[in-house]
Amino acid sequence: MIQVGLFGASGYTGFELVKLLHRHPEVALRFITSRSQAGQSLAHLYPAGPDLPLIAPENAPLTDVDLVFLCLPHAAGAPTAVAALEAGARVVDLSADFRLKSAADYTHWYGVEHPAPNLLPEALYGLSEFVRDQLPDARLVANPGCYPTSILLALQPALAVGAAGGAIIADAKSGVSGAGRLPRQNTHFVEVAGNFSPYNIGRSHRHLPEMEQAMAQWSKSAPPLIFSPHLLPVPRGILSTVYMPLKKGWSEPTLRTLYEEIYSSEPFIRVLPAGELATLAHVVNSNRCVIGLSVAAETLILTSAIDNLVKGAAGQAVQNMNLMFGFEEQTGLV
Amino acid sequence: MIQVGLFGASGYTGFELVKLLHRHPEVALRFITSRSQAGQSLAHLYPAGPDLPLIAPENAPLTDVDLVFLCLPHAAGAPTAVAALEAGARVVDLSADFRLKSAADYTHWYGVEHPAPNLLPEALYGLSEFVRDQLPDARLVANPGCYPTSILLALQPALAVGAAGGAIIADAKSGVSGAGRLPRQNTHFVEVAGNFSPYNIGRSHRHLPEMEQAMAQWSKSAPPLIFSPHLLPVPRGILSTVYMPLKKGWSEPTLRTLYEEIYSSEPFIRVLPAGELATLAHVVNSNRCVIGLSVAAETLILTSAIDNLVKGAAGQAVQNMNLMFGFEEQTGLV
Amino acid sequence: MIQVGLFGASGYTGFELVKLLHRHPEVALRFITSRSQAGQSLAHLYPAGPDLPLIAPENAPLTDVDLVFLCLPHAAGAPTAVAALEAGARVVDLSADFRLKSAADYTHWYGVEHPAPNLLPEALYGLSEFVRDQLPDARLVANPGCYPTSILLALQPALAVGAAGGAIIADAKSGVSGAGRLPRQNTHFVEVAGNFSPYNIGRSHRHLPEMEQAMAQWSKSAPPLIFSPHLLPVPRGILSTVYMPLKKGWSEPTLRTLYEEIYSSEPFIRVLPAGELATLAHVVNSNRCVIGLSVAAETLILTSAIDNLVKGAAGQAVQNMNLMFGFEEQTGLV
Amino acid sequence: MIQVGLFGASGYTGFELVKLLHRHPEVALRFITSRSQAGQSLAHLYPAGPDLPLIAPENAPLTDVDLVFLCLPHAAGAPTAVAALEAGARVVDLSADFRLKSAADYTHWYGVEHPAPNLLPEALYGLSEFVRDQLPDARLVANPGCYPTSILLALQPALAVGAAGGAIIADAKSGVSGAGRLPRQNTHFVEVAGNFSPYNIGRSHRHLPEMEQAMAQWSKSAPPLIFSPHLLPVPRGILSTVYMPLKKGWSEPTLRTLYEEIYSSEPFIRVLPAGELATLAHVVNSNRCVIGLSVAAETLILTSAIDNLVKGAAGQAVQNMNLMFGFEEQTGLV
Repeated sequence: MIQVGLFGASGYTGFELVKLLHRHPEVALRFITSRSQAGQSLAHLYPAGPDLPLIAPENAPLTDVDLVFLCLPHAAGAPTAVAALEAGARVVDLSADFRLKSAADYTHWYGVEHPAPNLLPEALYGLSEFVRDQLPDARLVANPGCYPTSILLALQPALAVGAAGGAIIADAKSGVSGAGRLPRQNTHFVEVAGNFSPYNIGRSHRHLPEMEQAMAQWSKSAPPLIFSPHLLPVPRGILSTVYMPLKKGWSEPTLRTLYEEIYSSEPFIRVLPAGELATLAHVVNSNRCVIGLSVAAETLILTSAIDNLVKGAAGQAVQNMNLMFGFEEQTGLV
Repeated sequence: MIQVGLFGASGYTGFELVKLLHRHPEVALRFITSRSQAGQSLAHLYPAGPDLPLIAPENAPLTDVDLVFLCLPHAAGAPTAVAALEAGARVVDLSADFRLKSAADYTHWYGVEHPAPNLLPEALYGLSEFVRDQLPDARLVANPGCYPTSILLALQPALAVGAAGGAIIADAKSGVSGAGRLPRQNTHFVEVAGNFSPYNIGRSHRHLPEMEQAMAQWSKSAPPLIFSPHLLPVPRGILSTVYMPLKKGWSEPTLRTLYEEIYSSEPFIRVLPAGELATLAHVVNSNRCVIGLSVAAETLILTSAIDNLVKGAAGQAVQNMNLMFGFEEQTGLV
Repeated sequence: MIQVGLFGASGYTGFELVKLLHRHPEVALRFITSRSQAGQSLAHLYPAGPDLPLIAPENAPLTDVDLVFLCLPHAAGAPTAVAALEAGARVVDLSADFRLKSAADYTHWYGVEHPAPNLLPEALYGLSEFVRDQLPDARLVANPGCYPTSILLALQPALAVGAAGGAIIADAKSGVSGAGRLPRQNTHFVEVAGNFSPYNIGRSHRHLPEMEQAMAQWSKSAPPLIFSPHLLPVPRGILSTVYMPLKKGWSEPTLRTLYEEIYSSEPFIRVLPAGELATLAHVVNSNRCVIGLSVAAETLILTSAIDNLVKGAAGQAVQNMNLMFGFEEQTGLV
Repeated sequence: MIQVGLFGASGYTGFELVKLLHRHPEVALRFITSRSQAGQSLAHLYPAGPDLPLIAPENAPLTDVDLVFLCLPHAAGAPTAVAALEAGARVVDLSADFRLKSAADYTHWYGVEHPAPNLLPEALYGLSEFVRDQLPDARLVANPGCYPTSILLALQPALAVGAAGGAIIADAKSGVSGAGRLPRQNTHFVEVAGNFSPYNIGRSHRHLPEMEQAMAQWSKSAPPLIFSPHLLPVPRGILSTVYMPLKKGWSEPTLRTLYEEIYSSEPFIRVLPAGELATLAHVVNSNRCVIGLSVAAETLILTSAIDNLVKGAAGQAVQNMNLMFGFEEQTGLV
């Protein structure tokens, strides 16, 4: 049993994480914070939410907890990360602050100075399946972005083995919760219902550098990534359709065998049988990632689905916590 | 051909009205205003919208137009109404400002002093079908609310004939555009999709006094109204299910004959055949009101459907304009 | 630990029940059947479903189980109920077959002879909260309909105390899963999305007699019920808005106290605080029923929400099983 | 004014076409047919539909009409096309029967012998913008498929000029009406709402050969096409995101100029300004195609949106009719 605190409980990711932690058998949830809603119960914001008090972040007892989750906007959480680490707590940060290794890249993509660049070397990019050995010793984990989780899990086996023969295209579609709980014109029901919209396509979305950084770690000659996010009229879920031009010699059966070998023992990843494609219905409300695989015109086509709030955020954060503290990896997750 | 101006074109009602006026063969749309979006094209706000410039309201040439439509929040439009009337234009106000005859009632329900109480006696409550004779001479028309339009058109025949034997219940359900274009937590896609919520039920919604005022005009002994609005996860449309306890002697055939007599020549109202019920699919994107009628347990059950943005707002405003200026009533409407 | 079998696992209710039983700590799920899909895995029908084999109903080993759940169409399940009881198993029937006490009423409403009228006297109408004492001894439980569950739980306290002063109106709205999994024109996505439709309103829906039968048990002078179901464009959830004219002397505070007393210790029922209204968001994916309460124009207005597939079907069936076999009532439910 | 008949009015495409023809100023709609619904009014099937009688196809007076539209399943319409041509009428076929020039290809993709192979040489593939000169003399027009319309209009300028440097990927997303009105499991509201699903991806969808045939006409060295359709939880609209690897020397400004030149005078095609992306909201309920264009990683990224029932079917059919009979191209269309 560990003592846990959570900063930023009022947003969709924070709320999802509270629900997971609240029922986790190894976790005592000591506090949850919200700057704007301090003093309220979480049940006041979410009709089906647990009746837990939201406290102001400055009142959070950092020294009482073993682990802190940060569900704050980028640049807002890093100072809390610093304070938590100083108080002796470990940190899983769900913002983008510790994902990029280069402070300069961070500034380029996020438009602000990095608030704690000295922590960047230590931060572990927590795509759970590929850093399982490092998590037990990690003090600071950068939880991956939602799109990157769906795309990187799909790409890794083929990329690491050097199958990619040209620019990779990730055509990704996300439910609206990915845009956050703050109401905006583009998340108004009337604008979204019946509509479907691409945004920040090509090489302009902030999740791009995070993906290319991971790709470069897996392959010395990783090709460029074209990443096209779209807004789906559903509350949650991401489906990424990923196209990788193949070098000569790679066939669907060979690749299928490769994927099955790499992922067969993974509790949360499922490679679909030939002919089956990933859909949101496979994964919503679970920590699963399902991956479909086929080849056409010498191109590997991957369909990869996750729930953006679970495997794409809160669920993976819990999975990382489980691995950090030596709990069984699936504890508290479905 | 008349010269027309519109204040408040950026909201859902304003935009709907621009679309109707833009293609109306008897209208020259001289200006459309938006305080927050002045200088932009309407096409910038609405991808499918016409490329018309939004001007600041203070720059609107009031003296150039025959008619002004006001699609402004309550209390915001009344001063413009005054100015327009002084400039010689006629006015159709789509806000609530001129619907209630009593300035005290207005203050009670809307929480502010009435901005132009001296105009209240003159204002005509523009439920088109029942003020057709007065519209040609009206200078100032208060366009009815969306819920009241759907409920009053359903109630009128039975109420005016004295069939009501007890409190009337209007259980109404509206699409999200009725809540306006300004993004709010309760119109966020993630909050609305998959959900369904009552609000302001009983005798607490601002549309209640407007309905009881009309009911009192039609029947000296009108019973009280219980009005329960609900938010539907659809962009547009209102369906009201209305329950009227009947005095002895009223049967379904008698009432059906009554409704058919009153509405048979109405271009926009359709009384459904026995056994058929009103649905949103009957009316969305049209100025129609369809009404279903049945009797059970000595209670008249009416189902009444309109498009809240058309017959419940912009469409009825155009219908009123057509009648005010002597155009054929259906001109520019479907 | 008990041995359990389930007939009719391929429909929405059956699938929901499989999910609940599959993770229930006191249940060994011995078999699940499907006539049309026998030989398939349940995961073949539902992407997120467990990989359990569907067997033909005639191959079900009735003598091996302590309890059988029937998720079959009306009239189809009764013979299996007979066979299961003869084999020594207890039965929870989720169809309508054993809800009405009168075989003649059954024939009137369902259009067929009752398949096992001699079992009707024994069958217990399993609205869990009001038959808790009888469930431990029940051999045959008729699980209530989804609409009746939401409406009866809302009505019971006021009705049983004699507060009703006239015809009660239940204006109910249900998600599409209530219409079953078999594709029909009226459940086609294009027909439902953006639409909202009443159906079988007044006194014509098959759930009416079931409700009036329960009402008569609770009150010698129960008034008639007017019941108006509507189809909501959401996958799951029922919200019923119920109007009960009050006899003199009943105020909102008195009624609130009454409801809170009756329901305060119920694990799955929550009476909302004054001013709060029930919504689908309170209950979807849970076994909860939330009830809001207010009074206007001498009428009690109740808003009552459940998940039609959980408290309205599979969840209440598990709740009944828990009570029948002496397990803690909340086991396996949220 | 021409005399027109329509076969297959009960499906979504047929109904959309009836609505367009019913209000078209140059058309007298002489008959509409439905095999399954003959004898009914169209208003019986569609609550907002016009009250027009559906007749059995064998009763259609072919000799009375100048033009016949066929909205029938593939292989079902070709015999009617033969009969209509023999009776002296011209034909616009909205099925796939006359799109492929090769009867062998037709058999390969559609699994049946072509019903009228001798008509294939004459049939004109009616992508209106590119066969404007041939339409006035065409007797038999094969109306393009919905996906091909959105993708081919996006590809044509860059493809015809030889800019494509490798396999083209069309990641396309369609609303549910594209799957037809016949209820199926995969169009059940509960299966579609909240979900998003790819299907027939790669090189397996029947629209692929139709697109590659057109591509080959425009470019001697057209690269292969990878085509991945997805089912969107919206009633109508297609958005295709198309990726074309570019040969050296092609930049975004050059390509933008090219697209603007080719499409600037097109009444129904709009090339969006730099930075703007196509969305369904641009096009739903109109005959427009909007195209966004950008370049990243030496790849042209096109976003192309149409309404699948209008520009993707009924609207383009009317556009073709207008051009066949010398009416102004935009008549009856928005």
